[in-house]
Amino acid sequence: MINTMTTTTAHTFTGVLEDVEREVDGVLSTFLETKSRNAAHPSVRGILTRLRALVLTGGERLRPRLCVLGWQAAGGLSGGGHGDSHAVAGAAASLEMVHAFTLIHDDIVDDSDTRLGVPTVHRALATHHHERPEAAKLALNAAGLLGDVALVYADEILHGAGLTSAQLRAALPVMNVMRTEVMYGQYLELLATGRLSTDVDGALQIARYKSAKYGIERPLHLGAALGGADDRLRASLTAFALPVGEAFQLREDLVSVFGGPGSADVRPAKQTVLMALALQRASDSDQEHLRRSVAGPEPSETDAARVRMILDDTGARDTVEHMITTRCREALRALAAADLPTETASTLRQIALQATARRS
Amino acid sequence: MINTMTTTTAHTFTGVLEDVEREVDGVLSTFLETKSRNAAHPSVRGILTRLRALVLTGGERLRPRLCVLGWQAAGGLSGGGHGDSHAVAGAAASLEMVHAFTLIHDDIVDDSDTRLGVPTVHRALATHHHERPEAAKLALNAAGLLGDVALVYADEILHGAGLTSAQLRAALPVMNVMRTEVMYGQYLELLATGRLSTDVDGALQIARYKSAKYGIERPLHLGAALGGADDRLRASLTAFALPVGEAFQLREDLVSVFGGPGSADVRPAKQTVLMALALQRASDSDQEHLRRSVAGPEPSETDAARVRMILDDTGARDTVEHMITTRCREALRALAAADLPTETASTLRQIALQATARRS
Repeated sequence: MINTMTTTTAHTFTGVLEDVEREVDGVLSTFLETKSRNAAHPSVRGILTRLRALVLTGGERLRPRLCVLGWQAAGGLSGGGHGDSHAVAGAAASLEMVHAFTLIHDDIVDDSDTRLGVPTVHRALATHHHERPEAAKLALNAAGLLGDVALVYADEILHGAGLTSAQLRAALPVMNVMRTEVMYGQYLELLATGRLSTDVDGALQIARYKSAKYGIERPLHLGAALGGADDRLRASLTAFALPVGEAFQLREDLVSVFGGPGSADVRPAKQTVLMALALQRASDSDQEHLRRSVAGPEPSETDAARVRMILDDTGARDTVEHMITTRCREALRALAAADLPTETASTLRQIALQATARRS
Repeated sequence: MINTMTTTTAHTFTGVLEDVEREVDGVLSTFLETKSRNAAHPSVRGILTRLRALVLTGGERLRPRLCVLGWQAAGGLSGGGHGDSHAVAGAAASLEMVHAFTLIHDDIVDDSDTRLGVPTVHRALATHHHERPEAAKLALNAAGLLGDVALVYADEILHGAGLTSAQLRAALPVMNVMRTEVMYGQYLELLATGRLSTDVDGALQIARYKSAKYGIERPLHLGAALGGADDRLRASLTAFALPVGEAFQLREDLVSVFGGPGSADVRPAKQTVLMALALQRASDSDQEHLRRSVAGPEPSETDAARVRMILDDTGARDTVEHMITTRCREALRALAAADLPTETASTLRQIALQATARRS
């Protein structure tokens, strides 16, 4: 009897998570189709296809999945009056629209040519307008506006998801804090761009804002808010999310330098914890090399290879691996101590391990 | 007795409108002080002072005043259960924070050096970071982010204004449509920048999105939503707002070319109804001159004088004056036909006349 129940629960659970990805895609697709159909001007319709392309090749939908897990953590699956799962999936979908804003603006700031192998929005727009005198500038401004439109669309999706008034009231502050945090993170990253420093704490703070809070903690909190979570549950989710999120970013930093199956662009030239540690420990000439590789244009393969060697030789790489392990353990300890449904905890554990595992 | 009552009502009314400006300033000031105090990083605190300077020298607070008038139009002053006026003033203040976003982004797109005599946000940031290699680019990205932060702050102010759930539910869609409309308008204007066309309808559409809807109609609708307005009242406000808003923009276009007491920057080089009309009617060589004055850098005083002469000689200036008069009449007719409290109608009438009057 107990076994059967467990199996059924697990089934429902997995089912819901799989459905979330499908439902999120459905919500985003329907929403953007409607916007496009109702656009008062063909130019608006035109630029919306770029947003659609970005949003609907969105990958693993980690943020929406975390949102649903947060809702489940707060008892959302038990049917205790915390609304239907469609409404929660709608709210989760709005996270992906916020993320479209973040990606478009990050690509502008980083001056990136491609994302996941296709031209970034501002590059695609520059190509589209190539016959115009100031195509690149026009494209940057248009892409910036499209990112802002995505931010407002995210609100529309959230407000129209069919949440109860209590759920909406609980969700709005989470969305507000999440969006300002990611913008603060983008701003601090912007200030740090182009000049290396030995400031490990500063680099960790950017990772906390841009990855840990924005990518893990707040999506969980959004779901938890929809499930009527109390402060204690919220704190438990934070205790799990922040170390996982930091570890995830540290892993990304390693992958972006040393490569791995998931790395389309290797750009060994950013202010990260990894670089800050290396800079602290490197010889004068190696420091100079690291600084040059960050300040200049894309470094040559030879220059990049020397950057990797410095990161290895100074032990910066090993230290970052150690930081990842420590944070991962901390997160799993927090998860074990939290009072979560078994299946929710097990899925979160799996996500933590996957997000922080070595990829080469 | 009736006289006394009228006087009292008028007094209360004027009192409320004056208080709105004070209250809006108070809400914005307190909000930004709290944000600044709680900022996790001194750099964030630093950039917030720029937002504060922009928001708190915000001039006449027309949008908030229209919001309060919309609320009064829906019976907001009669005390019929549509919440307290402080909450409405808070919601009205959020319009000014949205407007900070609009101004910052418009200044970036227009590459403006000053606004109301002081450096624009991106110029001030470029000066602040002048010692850095790519100061101008950094400043543009940082200013863009600050604009986006203002957009999220606007939400926070609205959500925290103390509205009832019914008011909040009614307000959110208005804010969403208003923000997408202004962004669509900015996008269409961006596409039209740097190249003149004879497309009068296109220029009018931009005026409708950026001035009439964003500046007049939606602020009235926001207030009306807070007062529980029905579709009929909303339609009445639209019938007033759109012609006033278009007339206001047409007046601005004239002032920006021909000057007037309110015009700090005369830049006779933008795609406007005025220019589209002149282009339709000008000789080939005059057309060429108009096109050059828009595409190139700031025209010389001689070139600008010739632009003005063309606008006069083609009758484009007169036509635009006529369009303003027609729209103003249409708006006042709509106002007379609308079923509004006397004082509200009288204030709206005054605003319409002031906003569209000749300024030289």
